[in-house]
Amino acid sequence: MSNKAKGSKAERELVRLFTEHGWRAVRVAGSGMHEDSPCDLIAGKKGKKGCTIEAKSSKKSRIYITKAQIEDFIVFSDMIGLKPVIAVRFNREGWLFLDPLKRHLEDSGKYWVVSLERARKKGKRFGQFF
Amino acid sequence: MSNKAKGSKAERELVRLFTEHGWRAVRVAGSGMHEDSPCDLIAGKKGKKGCTIEAKSSKKSRIYITKAQIEDFIVFSDMIGLKPVIAVRFNREGWLFLDPLKRHLEDSGKYWVVSLERARKKGKRFGQFF
Repeated sequence: MSNKAKGSKAERELVRLFTEHGWRAVRVAGSGMHEDSPCDLIAGKKGKKGCTIEAKSSKKSRIYITKAQIEDFIVFSDMIGLKPVIAVRFNREGWLFLDPLKRHLEDSGKYWVVSLERARKKGKRFGQFF
Repeated sequence: MSNKAKGSKAERELVRLFTEHGWRAVRVAGSGMHEDSPCDLIAGKKGKKGCTIEAKSSKKSRIYITKAQIEDFIVFSDMIGLKPVIAVRFNREGWLFLDPLKRHLEDSGKYWVVSLERARKKGKRFGQFF
């Protein structure tokens, strides 16, 4: 399976997770590799603040996101008036949710990094986060 | 060109229109025919209320939208906290924008209808609407 197909599959899994919790989520067209989309999902639930979601899954123990991508994600979320959320999934860990506006990501120069250790420490499960 | 390809082309044209006016717009995945997406675009601009957009273009003089689709569109927009907007484009008319929460659509039983005449009367150009 290509990385793009894996990304789409992970996004659809995340859409289902939102749906199971009574949210409604949509995937943004053109998300995945080499395309210029400012986020992967947009989700809402009555009585909650709507969210933009950047989803990343990996079989490795560190996830890298370029600073340009995170900046674009935060600027877009602000323009549209929704709350930016980073969703990460490591092997056998399930989805964990992080706030890019808090110190949940580690700075490594060109990239923001989420390590498995960091995600376990700072990340929250769906029910805790939302 | 298939209806789906025409729809995607019209949506991309609309994304450009938003971009030209300093907005940022994204297309929702799975929009187009026979798919279950609650809107076509999501757009925002700093200082403006974010919008969900349902886009319809036609070479005929009447555009039909099922009531179920409009209801789903309005419910989703409300869940996510964005303003629903209908964008219609008839041949040689350019895009016109309508508010589905006002009496901009005509009731024809199973469908809400936007006629060219109605769109000219009730619809607004981008700069007037937003």
